[in-house]
This record gives sequence, structure tokens and C-alpha cells, in this order.
Amino acid sequence: MTTSPRQIKLGAFLMQTGHHIAAWRHPDAQADAGVNFKHYVELARRAEAAKFDAVFLADSVGVRNRNIDSLSRTARSDHFEPLTLLSALAAVTEHIGLIATVSTTYNEPYHVARKFASLDQISGGRSGWNLVTSSGEGEAQNFNLDAHVDHAQRYARAAEFHDVVLGLWDSWEDDAFVRDTESGVYFEPEKLHPLNHRGEHFRVRGPLNVARSPQGRPVVVQAGASPAGRDLAARTAEVIFVAHQTFDEAQSFYRDIKQRASDYGRDPDQIKIMPGIFPVIGRTQAEAEEKFARLQDLIHPIVGVQLLSNMIGGFDLSAYPVDGPLPDLPETNGGKSRQQLLIDLARRENLSIRDLYLRIAGARGHQQIVGTPQSVADQLQQWFEEEGADGFNIMSPWLPGGLNDFIDLALPELRRRGLVRTEYQGHTLRDHLGLHRPEHRAVVGRRLSQAA
Amino acid sequence: MTTSPRQIKLGAFLMQTGHHIAAWRHPDAQADAGVNFKHYVELARRAEAAKFDAVFLADSVGVRNRNIDSLSRTARSDHFEPLTLLSALAAVTEHIGLIATVSTTYNEPYHVARKFASLDQISGGRSGWNLVTSSGEGEAQNFNLDAHVDHAQRYARAAEFHDVVLGLWDSWEDDAFVRDTESGVYFEPEKLHPLNHRGEHFRVRGPLNVARSPQGRPVVVQAGASPAGRDLAARTAEVIFVAHQTFDEAQSFYRDIKQRASDYGRDPDQIKIMPGIFPVIGRTQAEAEEKFARLQDLIHPIVGVQLLSNMIGGFDLSAYPVDGPLPDLPETNGGKSRQQLLIDLARRENLSIRDLYLRIAGARGHQQIVGTPQSVADQLQQWFEEEGADGFNIMSPWLPGGLNDFIDLALPELRRRGLVRTEYQGHTLRDHLGLHRPEHRAVVGRRLSQAA
Repeated sequence: MTTSPRQIKLGAFLMQTGHHIAAWRHPDAQADAGVNFKHYVELARRAEAAKFDAVFLADSVGVRNRNIDSLSRTARSDHFEPLTLLSALAAVTEHIGLIATVSTTYNEPYHVARKFASLDQISGGRSGWNLVTSSGEGEAQNFNLDAHVDHAQRYARAAEFHDVVLGLWDSWEDDAFVRDTESGVYFEPEKLHPLNHRGEHFRVRGPLNVARSPQGRPVVVQAGASPAGRDLAARTAEVIFVAHQTFDEAQSFYRDIKQRASDYGRDPDQIKIMPGIFPVIGRTQAEAEEKFARLQDLIHPIVGVQLLSNMIGGFDLSAYPVDGPLPDLPETNGGKSRQQLLIDLARRENLSIRDLYLRIAGARGHQQIVGTPQSVADQLQQWFEEEGADGFNIMSPWLPGGLNDFIDLALPELRRRGLVRTEYQGHTLRDHLGLHRPEHRAVVGRRLSQAA
Repeated sequence: MTTSPRQIKLGAFLMQTGHHIAAWRHPDAQADAGVNFKHYVELARRAEAAKFDAVFLADSVGVRNRNIDSLSRTARSDHFEPLTLLSALAAVTEHIGLIATVSTTYNEPYHVARKFASLDQISGGRSGWNLVTSSGEGEAQNFNLDAHVDHAQRYARAAEFHDVVLGLWDSWEDDAFVRDTESGVYFEPEKLHPLNHRGEHFRVRGPLNVARSPQGRPVVVQAGASPAGRDLAARTAEVIFVAHQTFDEAQSFYRDIKQRASDYGRDPDQIKIMPGIFPVIGRTQAEAEEKFARLQDLIHPIVGVQLLSNMIGGFDLSAYPVDGPLPDLPETNGGKSRQQLLIDLARRENLSIRDLYLRIAGARGHQQIVGTPQSVADQLQQWFEEEGADGFNIMSPWLPGGLNDFIDLALPELRRRGLVRTEYQGHTLRDHLGLHRPEHRAVVGRRLSQAA
């Protein structure tokens, strides 16, 4: 890998019909995107031609929304499983990274280690695992539980899960498999390292039945913003996917994580922080706003009210007039929590229920930019240059149109400023992101013992 | 689907370097096949060009062999995970079916239902699930257990697992997703059917978050030969993959399964029985035998002795001279079990340890044919026409050469006899196999209640 100036990392967040809650109704969207493989092939190839670092797939292991009136009006209940989809995309792309979300809560580390190692082999070193925990009841009830697992439990399990997966990825040294047909030696026994893990949540003997993969280990991505999430990420994540609404929030998070990583003895440059950005781009500001208004108009009130009900803590607003004020709500115990911020906002600006859901229905917690190529580039440049971000996950409002707008309108401006790559310089996702290929732990151990 | 004369179904069993234990040492084999994606792309495309019904991948969730001297001389410890591999192959093939083995013992039905439904969507209706149970300690110890789960337990779990998966595949009626952008209705609520399963092993609420797939349900394959396995297969399997050594054995199994299926009220023609065949083919008998001898010569004695030790019940033979006789062994309690048959064979024919492992190292329980295109075709024709088989899984001795021999030498003879297809007639794996697309259970229910 050649050294190059620091440039913005770009992920293409491929959320079926798009990130906006009503995207599927957009005339240029692909309404059946969730089960349309060609749609994803075109998106991945388009993002690759634009030299994105990776495509990024979210996930949930169940249908989360239980309100049938709202659920039946959103495109969130049928979609490909991420690892099967990314494996298929691996066969029709050459350079772009492939990041899939897989939860640690209702899974076993052996399966997860194996699938990402396999994808890394299939793709020639392009796989990344977005490690998350599952908090929804809709998911728990698909896995023999009545209620979801509590937060501390989930994070304790996630941390051990991570360590087991990394251990399994080091089951074999890079040069273990000599495959000498003459002598009949397929691998060198001393380069096999069973894991023999016995912990609180898992007992896993190993070894993994996949050779060490092209990247050594697939890239580990995380998204936690809670204190437990930040701590786990600072110790273990190589990429952090996060949602911020303001630059100050982004900068404070960025500095906190880099400091925590440093405290763990890690090189802070080896954690790439990539907030989500929800861009609606027009050649003029008026065009951008018109595009956004067009999407907003497509939100069915039932969907908007249900979304808002969820975000203010599950209080059902469906019985109140949608153009009337937010009713008095029970006190939340989160102080300045996100839900309290929403309530305060409604009071301060005298917003109706409809006004309020329109504020949140687009970006849903991520930074929303409705603007021109210049204003989008200005904002990304500021975040990137002033310790707010190492790159961005582009949460296209609708697909493929929203991604095409970013590529056709904003990327040329970012290229002109020298802020993004014009060609891939390496072959693996680690190469793209500027992440070192990790040495095998046995090799590190031998070097340390020789030095002693 | 057009009706056509009954023809032999063909599966290409893709076992990394090949089915023979020493295949990886063959000069025309691909020694790194386990992690060589191009190798599989070429095999799948070759099998598709030859109009095979499906490619078929075996699996184990761990490294089974614990004898490091033998393990390090075989190519069984590093290989792709089947579902990631088949998903990638789906993107580079168009017609051929894609069957992957996934165990029910250390998995959750929601994950398995979801991945096969996703693969069925990606591939346009070509996925099949080979449902197995896991019996190895090497596997159990990767999943928080010290010993493997006992046989009865495994089968009880497998049966319930199967029913949950089928229920999840019917979460949505075929026409549930109307995606009407004008009215904003994405799906029709009355066509959603959560499962609400509460059984002995699983509690799964559902629905699956994947639309009903092109085949309605992916094809269910099974391999059980024990009484519990046969019973489960007769009730639930659509394809049975099985190992027989003689025609009589095959015929007796075939008749038994078809009868059991009938007893369960099923159409016996809707279960396709496909024994494994291990063919070594030459233009002349001498050429075939020479090819086989060449493979046999590549078996390292350590590997052969370990294989034999496993097959006679785990008694370690490594301390005995390889060209000496089989030592007296402790009585097995299986009567005429497979291990006792081996011991009897050695005594009767006065075989050395080496002679005996050479007998089993190739086909390993499957029917071995070393012969000309005519003799291979004769045997397949007899089994097919005389109630021994509906088709065959071709266990190529080495890859790609062994598969190429079958395609180039045996298939033309089978085509001449009209026993195999020359073109695909349908699009899905069900079409190829002559299996009906199952109606949704709610549709069946409505029809029955209207008829009543």
C-alpha cells in the first residue's frame, strides 16, 4: 500500500429502497428493492465505479415494528439477509468493501467468525463485520425469549463474542497451509492454534475450519454510542458508524473515542470514525428543497405518527389530531435524553404532531443536509478537517436516485478539493481504509519472546 | 413446467479437492480448492453447462479429525462456509440448483429459514437445504458443549426445527407485497401470518423478514439412514441423499422410503432419492483402473490407518504394522454393523491393514464404479429403472478432473440412451427436480374451509 494524503472514507449505506421512511413510494425508487438482487448489483457497481470504500448493510433479525397499520405502509419487513447478499455481490464486484451487520445477541461466535472469514476468502479480502447487539422484543421472540436481553448483559456478551471471533480468525498462521503434494503435508501442525476459550458466555474449542483470510482478520465495525458501546468500540472497533446531528456533537464524540483508544494503547489513527450523512442534493438550494419536500409529502400520517410515538418512548399518539399540538406526556426519566429533546423542541417552536414527525422522518438521527454540491462539500470538509469525522456513511434518501445524486453532484466537488480518492490504491478493505493488516498473535508472541 | 419423461436427476457433489481422501495430491486437482473461489465458479459453470440439477455442498461446523498426524495430511480443515459460497455462486450461474448442508444441532431455525429464503430470492428460486444433525465432538465443543448431543435428542430437535423453518417460509402469502406507491400500502395485513410457535425446543414468534420466495419454499434435502432418519425423511424430505454399496441395499431403501412416504399420505413421486456415486471413468477398463490406482497410491499410510481406525469404531491401529493383519479387536455391540462387516471382510479375504483401508478410502461408503462410460451408464440405468434411485449425486474422486470425466465420457452415453436432460425446461430447482411448488398453508386452509 502506498502512502497517500488523508482522504475522506466513504461508505454507501444500502437500505433497500433508501433511508427516508417513505422512499419506497418515490417514483424513481425501486419499490421491491428488498428482494431485488439486480437493484443491489447496480448500486454496488455504481458505488465501486465512484471508488467508495465499502457498501454497508444494516440488519435486524426480525420485524421490529408491531403496529400493523404503520408496518404495512413501510418497506421494512422484507429484505435479503446481509451475508447471503454480500456474498453474491462479492462475485460481481472487484474492489469495493463489503460490510454486513450481524448481531451478537442471538448468534454463536463460531458461525459468525466462519461466515466473515469465508466472505473474506471469496472476495479477496473485502469483508467487514458491523458488530451490534439486538434490543428489540420482535427479535428476542424469534429466539426462544419472551423479552429482550438487558443492556449490560448484551454488552458483556458482545465483548466476549468479539474476543472469541478474533481468536478464531487466528486459528491458523498465514503460512500454515503448505499443501505440498509431493510429501503429502497439507498443513504444518505447529501453525495450527486451537482457541480453547472458556469464558462466561462461551466455550469454544476451535480451530476455525477456514484458513486465515486475505485481510488477516475481516474489519470490525461498531456503532455503539452509549458509554458501554463507546468503551467496547475504543477497545475493539476499527471503524465506528455513528449518528450525529451537529458538528459539536460529532467533534466531541470523535475526540472522546480517539482519547479512549489511546488510553487502551491503540493508535487512534487505526479507528476510523464515519458518521451517517443524509444528503438531499440539488443543483440549486431550491431544487434540493423541492426534492426533499417531494419525499416528505409521501409520508403517510399513520407512518409518521407511529415513528414519532416510538421516538418519544413508546407513547401512542395515534388518538390525537395530527395537526394539533403534542399532548402532555408522562415525564421521561432520561433527563436530556433524545425523547426529551424532541418534546422540548415541539414546545419551543410550537410544532404540531405532523410538524414534529416531519423533522425526524428523513435522517432519523443522522446529519441531514439539504443543499447544493458546494454546501454538502463544505460541511463534509469541515467535519473531516476539524476532528469531526474520518469519513461518512452516505445514507441515500432514496435508491438508486439519491446515491446517484451524491455521486454525480457532490463527488466531483469533493474530488476537485482533493478530499476523496480518484482510484483504488490497494486491493482489500483494509487497504482502502488505511488499516494495517493485523499480524497473527502467535507471530507477535514469538517476536516478543525473542526480544526478551 | 412441461411434463417430460422421467429422467435421471444429477447432483454435482463439490467436495473441495474431490471425494477421494488423497484427491488434493492428484496432479490435476486444485490443492487449495477449499479457499479458491474461481475453482468453484468453474465447477458450477461446468455442471450447469452439462445440465445438472444442482451443485451440492457438504459441511461440518468444526474440524472433525483430532489426530493431528492424519489431519495435517488431508485437505479437510479449511473450506468455505456453504451458504456464503452458494450465494456467491448464485451470482455467476443462471439455472443450476444450489444445495447447502446446514446442521440443525447448533443453529436457530430463524437464521436458517432466513438465509435459505434469501438465497432463493437472490438465485431466482434455486436454493435447497440439506437438513442434517451434527454428531461430532469437534463440533459440539465449538458451541459451548463438552460432548455431542445424543441421537434421539438430535432427531427430536431436527424434526421441530424443520417444522419451524417451513412455518417461517409461509410467513407471507405469495401476493402479500402489493407495494402500491399511490395508496401507500406496502403489504396487505391479512396476508401476513406470524408463526407463534411454542414447542419443546423452540419458541419462535415470526414473521420471517423475507417475502415468500420464488419456490414457495426452498427444497428440503435429507440424508438420514437410521430408523429415526428414515422416518423424518419420509415425513419431510423432498430429496434424499444416501450412501449405498450395492443395488439390493439401494432398492430396499428406495422401496422402504417410498412406502413410508405413502403411509404419511404423501405422493411418493415427490421424494427424489439420490444415492451418491463415486465414478472413476476411463475409455477402457484398464484406463479406469489405472486412474484409480494412481489415486490410491497417493494415500499416505498415516491417513489410511486413521481413516480405518475411525471406521472400525475408534480403535487406534497406528501401532500395528500396516502390511500385517488386522489385530483382534474388542467385540462391537452393533452385530452386523458396518464396522463388523469390515472386520469380517478382512478375515474372510485375509486382508492386511493397508489392503483394508484401500478398500474404503475412495468412496467411503458410497457406490464405487471403476469402469467405462458404458459400464457406468449400465449401472446408473439399472438403479434408475429398477427402483434403486431417482437420480445420483456424483461424488467426483478429484476435482475438476473427475467431474470433467463424468461430463465428457459418461454423460454422452446417458444422453444417447435418453436418460438425462439435454436442456433445462424450467427455471427453479423444483422445476428441474419435478417437485411441485407448495401452496401457502393459508391458501390451502381457505380452500379446505370453502369446500367444507
